[in-house]
Amino acid sequence: MKITVIGCGRWGSFITWYLDSIGHQVFLYGRESSVHMQRFLKERKNNLLTLPESVGLTTDLSAAADSEVIIISINSQGLQKLMDELKILNLADKKVVLCMKGIEIETGRRLSQIAGENLDSSNSVAVWLGPGHVQEFTKGIPNCMVIDSSDEETKSLLVKEFSSTLIRFYYGQDLIGNEIGAAAKNVIGIAAGMLDGFHLSTLKGALMSRGTREVARLIKAMGGNELSAYGLCHLGDYEATVFSEFSHNRRFGELFVQGKQSDDLAEGYFTVKALMRLEKEYGVELPICHTVYEVLYENREPSEALDALFTRSLKNEF
Amino acid sequence: MKITVIGCGRWGSFITWYLDSIGHQVFLYGRESSVHMQRFLKERKNNLLTLPESVGLTTDLSAAADSEVIIISINSQGLQKLMDELKILNLADKKVVLCMKGIEIETGRRLSQIAGENLDSSNSVAVWLGPGHVQEFTKGIPNCMVIDSSDEETKSLLVKEFSSTLIRFYYGQDLIGNEIGAAAKNVIGIAAGMLDGFHLSTLKGALMSRGTREVARLIKAMGGNELSAYGLCHLGDYEATVFSEFSHNRRFGELFVQGKQSDDLAEGYFTVKALMRLEKEYGVELPICHTVYEVLYENREPSEALDALFTRSLKNEF
Repeated sequence: MKITVIGCGRWGSFITWYLDSIGHQVFLYGRESSVHMQRFLKERKNNLLTLPESVGLTTDLSAAADSEVIIISINSQGLQKLMDELKILNLADKKVVLCMKGIEIETGRRLSQIAGENLDSSNSVAVWLGPGHVQEFTKGIPNCMVIDSSDEETKSLLVKEFSSTLIRFYYGQDLIGNEIGAAAKNVIGIAAGMLDGFHLSTLKGALMSRGTREVARLIKAMGGNELSAYGLCHLGDYEATVFSEFSHNRRFGELFVQGKQSDDLAEGYFTVKALMRLEKEYGVELPICHTVYEVLYENREPSEALDALFTRSLKNEF
Repeated sequence: MKITVIGCGRWGSFITWYLDSIGHQVFLYGRESSVHMQRFLKERKNNLLTLPESVGLTTDLSAAADSEVIIISINSQGLQKLMDELKILNLADKKVVLCMKGIEIETGRRLSQIAGENLDSSNSVAVWLGPGHVQEFTKGIPNCMVIDSSDEETKSLLVKEFSSTLIRFYYGQDLIGNEIGAAAKNVIGIAAGMLDGFHLSTLKGALMSRGTREVARLIKAMGGNELSAYGLCHLGDYEATVFSEFSHNRRFGELFVQGKQSDDLAEGYFTVKALMRLEKEYGVELPICHTVYEVLYENREPSEALDALFTRSLKNEF
């Protein structure tokens, strides 16, 4: 298939590398002003991988109009702006795949909602979610991921075209649950990092049990299947997010409680703000996410906050 | 409270140490022939902890008749035999707490069933389950655990009497789910070790997602609450069982696929056999447990077995 990947960060460039490696014709788009793109244009590589000559590199967004599939992997909060830019192109009949995890802060919209509202009825929108770190995939270490779409034909086509021994895809069946679960796992990852930062890693067991529970409640309140919180999009991503040394969100939380600066803000930093909107809108208690929010945005003392979270103990589990 | 702990292994001796440390009057029973007990009698210690002088040590099982609470922490497959020995004592009105994880192979009975069938109506039976490693507790690193019982008064009393800042107890509400979940997590731990042994640790995300799911199905089929699989007894124990260096079951699986001998058989080795009985009895598919069984008992090639398990990918998640 002819595919354009929009977004040349860590994940976008990996998707480009991966889809090229399994035989697709891939073009990677990045802005002219992007430091990542400048390096790809000069050296064809970043710190994690090298893109072979078979990959096309472009700073012209209109290239997307020539591909059958457009994959978007950018910062979630910038999706509406990108969709505005894409509107002037003729994208009729194209399949748009979102490889990103987040919720729009200003509106609480899921990413497939944003895409859907900006495309027309000839387009189908899919999401590509689940665990995996570029550092591991490029070493050949496999993982399972999930593709979901309200369009069954698109979902089947993408699972078939994108599967390999490196990435084994499952068919998602709950767009709401998969998108909310995928976004929220980054917040649980920050909480995990905070526990690590205080040498309370043992409490990551309780964090997993209670984190999945509150995300399940939110998914259910939003009309999704609560079991999706226990699927690949969320619990299935905990190995990569709650435990892995490569997890940006975990690392961000760890450094935060140690009073150190992270290189860049983790996606969960934004997502937790959006979750506070959804918590209110749907009237669901999200104690872990709420605590992370208070620590990150309201200067709540993290040690006391975590203690209050986990010493709420003399109570029923469910 | 006056408490007798039966079983002087790693966990029984820790419980003794812990309950003494929070002010209870504790007696530790071990068989005269036990190497552990011989060392305690001589040096008051094992490789993990030292029991203070305030702890009573005894090789006389009838000491149990003097305590208000009897805690049992022995090999699960030996519980019926111990109950036979206890029968000759007058244990009227005593509370019996099971700190052990397993299912009887010969009958598929849960441990609280075994205890209940061998006691009389004046006794109450509780289970004490959840994550934690002695190596961490003795360093002061806290964890959350769960106490469950069909007798509400006993459950409340034990949670109140046993709670501390080191162990925060939750009230369990599903004896079936908590016991099955606690036992089955050891089998998932073995599977996790097998993945580690093949440097496929990334697949522990998918293992968590699918492992909880099959255990949830079994719990539901047995009449419990499927959500218990996602509680402290099972998912909440994955940090300690699926990830920790201290996990016996994980280590056992890792060594097994590397063709090395473990010091001793892990509890999950026995539990998986009992689970095969329950799988058949309740007509529930347990693909991960079944695979572990085939590898451990039927010489199935582990690399191929794990591959078949996780490349079952082109399918719906739930």
